[in-house]
Amino acid sequence: MSLARTLWDPLHVRVLRLLRDEGALSRAELADRLDIPRPRLLGELDRLVAGGHVAEAGPAESRGGRRSTLVELNPGMRFAGVDLGATSIDVEVTNGRLEPVAHYSETADIRSGPKVTLQRVNELLAKAKVEGAFTHLDGIGIGVPGPVSFRDGVPVSPPIMPGWDRFPVRELLTREHGCPAVVDNDVNIMAVGERNAGVAHSVDNFLFVKIGTGIGCGVFLGGEVYRGTDGCAGDIGHIQVDSHGPVCSCGNIGCLEAVFSGAALAREATAAARSGTSPALAERLATNGVVTAMDVAIAAVEGDVVCVQLIRDGGRRIGTVLAGLVSFVNPSMIVIGGGLAQLGHIMLAEIRSVVYRRSLPLATGNLPLVLSELGPRAGVAGAAVLASEIAFEQA
Amino acid sequence: MSLARTLWDPLHVRVLRLLRDEGALSRAELADRLDIPRPRLLGELDRLVAGGHVAEAGPAESRGGRRSTLVELNPGMRFAGVDLGATSIDVEVTNGRLEPVAHYSETADIRSGPKVTLQRVNELLAKAKVEGAFTHLDGIGIGVPGPVSFRDGVPVSPPIMPGWDRFPVRELLTREHGCPAVVDNDVNIMAVGERNAGVAHSVDNFLFVKIGTGIGCGVFLGGEVYRGTDGCAGDIGHIQVDSHGPVCSCGNIGCLEAVFSGAALAREATAAARSGTSPALAERLATNGVVTAMDVAIAAVEGDVVCVQLIRDGGRRIGTVLAGLVSFVNPSMIVIGGGLAQLGHIMLAEIRSVVYRRSLPLATGNLPLVLSELGPRAGVAGAAVLASEIAFEQA
Repeated sequence: MSLARTLWDPLHVRVLRLLRDEGALSRAELADRLDIPRPRLLGELDRLVAGGHVAEAGPAESRGGRRSTLVELNPGMRFAGVDLGATSIDVEVTNGRLEPVAHYSETADIRSGPKVTLQRVNELLAKAKVEGAFTHLDGIGIGVPGPVSFRDGVPVSPPIMPGWDRFPVRELLTREHGCPAVVDNDVNIMAVGERNAGVAHSVDNFLFVKIGTGIGCGVFLGGEVYRGTDGCAGDIGHIQVDSHGPVCSCGNIGCLEAVFSGAALAREATAAARSGTSPALAERLATNGVVTAMDVAIAAVEGDVVCVQLIRDGGRRIGTVLAGLVSFVNPSMIVIGGGLAQLGHIMLAEIRSVVYRRSLPLATGNLPLVLSELGPRAGVAGAAVLASEIAFEQA
Repeated sequence: MSLARTLWDPLHVRVLRLLRDEGALSRAELADRLDIPRPRLLGELDRLVAGGHVAEAGPAESRGGRRSTLVELNPGMRFAGVDLGATSIDVEVTNGRLEPVAHYSETADIRSGPKVTLQRVNELLAKAKVEGAFTHLDGIGIGVPGPVSFRDGVPVSPPIMPGWDRFPVRELLTREHGCPAVVDNDVNIMAVGERNAGVAHSVDNFLFVKIGTGIGCGVFLGGEVYRGTDGCAGDIGHIQVDSHGPVCSCGNIGCLEAVFSGAALAREATAAARSGTSPALAERLATNGVVTAMDVAIAAVEGDVVCVQLIRDGGRRIGTVLAGLVSFVNPSMIVIGGGLAQLGHIMLAEIRSVVYRRSLPLATGNLPLVLSELGPRAGVAGAAVLASEIAFEQA
């Protein structure tokens, strides 16, 4: 599927992708790698140089025959990746090779609405420009914490984003920055990032499970993000795991997210602190006035039995859902990311134990279940990849 | 994805598919529909006629200009679709347009092993030949009730098929009948059948849920069967639905299949008959010495309260699993098939109720959840489609 798609893409997209992923190449190498006649490549390169997308990069090392010259992406090419979380804005500017040249990260409340939030994104990008990160952008990718119509470039009925429903995010960014833009779900961009530059590099079928304030899943099938019919595939946070569990923000009972997530863990940790069953958490509550999921992680590493158990219980819940998805999808890899990935190996060990015990042996025989490699950078990195793809397509 | 794949396929495959799906067409219509220059089409048709795949079919109706002649698939073209169940063999022979020309169905035990079973398949095909259904076969598709390596054409560790592990099914059929063969999972061929000629016609993303002796799911994504990394995607029968439930044949606790399937329902029905809570089932047990899932269906339609409740409980279990999968996959349609689809609308109503209540509203806003249209023919129909595809590719 991936191969067919790649071969089917227009030649200029294939040239630009190769230069993005491999850096400067000689004309001879490009013609070889793309398996096309040299005259056709040279014509295409002339157009890309004339359009300012590709630049000469000096002579190649001799291969014995006629000296070839190197070409590379225009050194001034810049992409912006934006990752909007429930409580954060991350912006990264990259060069054409997707190497970061500027990064900004700050807290923000997605509930302040699209105008305020996107205004702040524009301010951060303006700051990057003033500081010399770019003169103009070639493409922008942005991820938002809710369902998105990828085709229309708008959020659709996002539960935790009041005021964002069908807000023209793509249109606004395109108009403001004069370049193509692409809008996706926050979990999808993390999956894309991890596949491009992280632990899932070149893996065609994998699940990226984000465990943070909420829980979601990026689904990579056949080398592409699978978005589903309405763009909301991967919404695993609301799979029921306990028919007698707590009421979820969605109105249903015992959703995974209501039972185990950053919010649920903080709630249970607070209860454990108040009841005194966990001395470590009680101490933190007394000191800070509040306990968070991170406190649970720290106390667990220090050996607090209640905290270890809270993480194990959570890992078991996640593992049960993932075991079902493994039987259903038969992926090549599962990557765990998001803020609660910091709960680390206690959680991972429990997830693994449930998945390996519960899923079809054929599906788990060779199934790595690993932590995200890019960590908090996964989102912006993936958004920049999508930015480059849309820029190349429209080049 | 589907479109890209279709356009990428070799021209001869595209021509043959059009003639299979549309019947006789004029050369002019073919050139239009395939959007290629007429000389290129004519060259390709010459090759296909010379190879015996395509035949002249007389003059087309005049469109005003020069009279075009019709072409069609060779009228002698024949495909065989074979559907091996746990306790049945179904064989259908079709013409090039996938219209059935012969059908055989009989009980058999898959546990008698590959040699005995495939010998019987060959005998049924020999019978069809003697009776004039074909002179030679152009392709064979076969579905088996277990995981399959689609690439290798062999079953892989199939739990209910002793002796079949890695047995060279494809190789044996190819050698015996001198034509290309393809081996797939029984649920996948049903999904293919339903998409080609049933209720899921031309739907790109859908789930085909087979509820029979066991439970499985065919996954159609982007217009293609999605098989997963090891070919075992869709194995939903072993998703846990009750951590305190009965032990499953797989060794785990509370699998969907252990809680609700043909086997589980017969077990519960027998208990209800013995305890006398269901007079209708008790009567059937006394008369026949055994009660089956079908008895539950009949008694439910006649109003037996216990039977209605058994079906509702089962529907709720299936619905809970499907609700999670709907949130995960965001499909355009769910099709319910297999023997227990005959439990009909009581079960369907319960499944719908759970899925529509439990899944993300965006994903269920326009999600038909329907019964299979092809019923017991779905498997052989889909196997014949796969047979035609492999025959066209190798033409």
